[in-house]
Amino acid sequence: MASFFPTALENLIDKFAMLPGIGKKSAQRLAFFVLGLPEGEAESFADAIIAARATVHTCVVCQNLTDAEICPICASEKRDRSQICVVAEPRDVASIERGREYNGLYHVLHGVLSPLSHIGPDDLRISELVSRVSAGGVEEVIMALNPDTEGETTSMYISRLIKPFGVKVTRLAYGIPVGSNLEFADDATLQRALEGRVEM
Amino acid sequence: MASFFPTALENLIDKFAMLPGIGKKSAQRLAFFVLGLPEGEAESFADAIIAARATVHTCVVCQNLTDAEICPICASEKRDRSQICVVAEPRDVASIERGREYNGLYHVLHGVLSPLSHIGPDDLRISELVSRVSAGGVEEVIMALNPDTEGETTSMYISRLIKPFGVKVTRLAYGIPVGSNLEFADDATLQRALEGRVEM
Repeated sequence: MASFFPTALENLIDKFAMLPGIGKKSAQRLAFFVLGLPEGEAESFADAIIAARATVHTCVVCQNLTDAEICPICASEKRDRSQICVVAEPRDVASIERGREYNGLYHVLHGVLSPLSHIGPDDLRISELVSRVSAGGVEEVIMALNPDTEGETTSMYISRLIKPFGVKVTRLAYGIPVGSNLEFADDATLQRALEGRVEM
Repeated sequence: MASFFPTALENLIDKFAMLPGIGKKSAQRLAFFVLGLPEGEAESFADAIIAARATVHTCVVCQNLTDAEICPICASEKRDRSQICVVAEPRDVASIERGREYNGLYHVLHGVLSPLSHIGPDDLRISELVSRVSAGGVEEVIMALNPDTEGETTSMYISRLIKPFGVKVTRLAYGIPVGSNLEFADDATLQRALEGRVEM
């Protein structure tokens, strides 16, 4: 397709179109929006990209994203060091922290095992988790991965690796989402909710 | 809401969330994607923003976006200078050019009249259009704005301004989209298609 926009604009559209979930039309809209930003705003957008890439890296302990060497959660003296909650992505830490219930530590895998996408144990931060558990002081590891095939496979794999260290391994409860309606629950969820029924 | 991400990452998320149609969750996903880009790719994204802002401006004649003083279409000797197609946005020029049918010039208003959004004639590139028409040599002005209230109001307003110069003013045909199905056409479109029926 021939280009009907100036080169620099086409280039910016291409950059936006490279982002996940952004098609060519959306990319155009975003690029036009950026062109129309007040003086300095576009520059500060560009700076934000550079700054994020330059200062954000993974915590040497839990592998969560941080701008310090050790992230605030791992560094906090108020957190329970006997619990490690294992999540797939940094955003999952944010989700659980928002609940303000959990007070242990985290471990971020940066993905899940996925043979189809050629993601094996060495592509995830699994050995770092094993090191933490083997170092002692950990009583429970809570697997908080997605309740799908890849998440469950990954949970099983990690569970088998760390149980020999005498640690208790648990997973999140599956069931009907709070506030939702039985009518809209899929069969698998309903089945899981039945299996996991608790006495009242 | 407390922040669970490093400051630079929160800042980048905020920048993405400022874009039209991008919510907080999508902004997070985009920011994580940018963090995970190969070395140099994030920098080239940032550079693309800066470059687009620095080099892209409006053509002094048709007000379309360009990186030259006069855009390639206005500068081309192959285009018919007696026709001006009036569109609301630069992307509309791209849409019409893709059809490879139209060979006249364009005029980009950069919006439409919208009393509700406080957009009046002085906020659009209307006086520039009047100057072009009054300079002579223009035989037909084709209004190609959206077939909605604002588009039609703008077309009527401009039509009344430029007709005194003895120019023919037309608008795009309204009707059933090619390849679509009568069943799915809304009442207004169907009504317009009936009104605009042509002899076979």
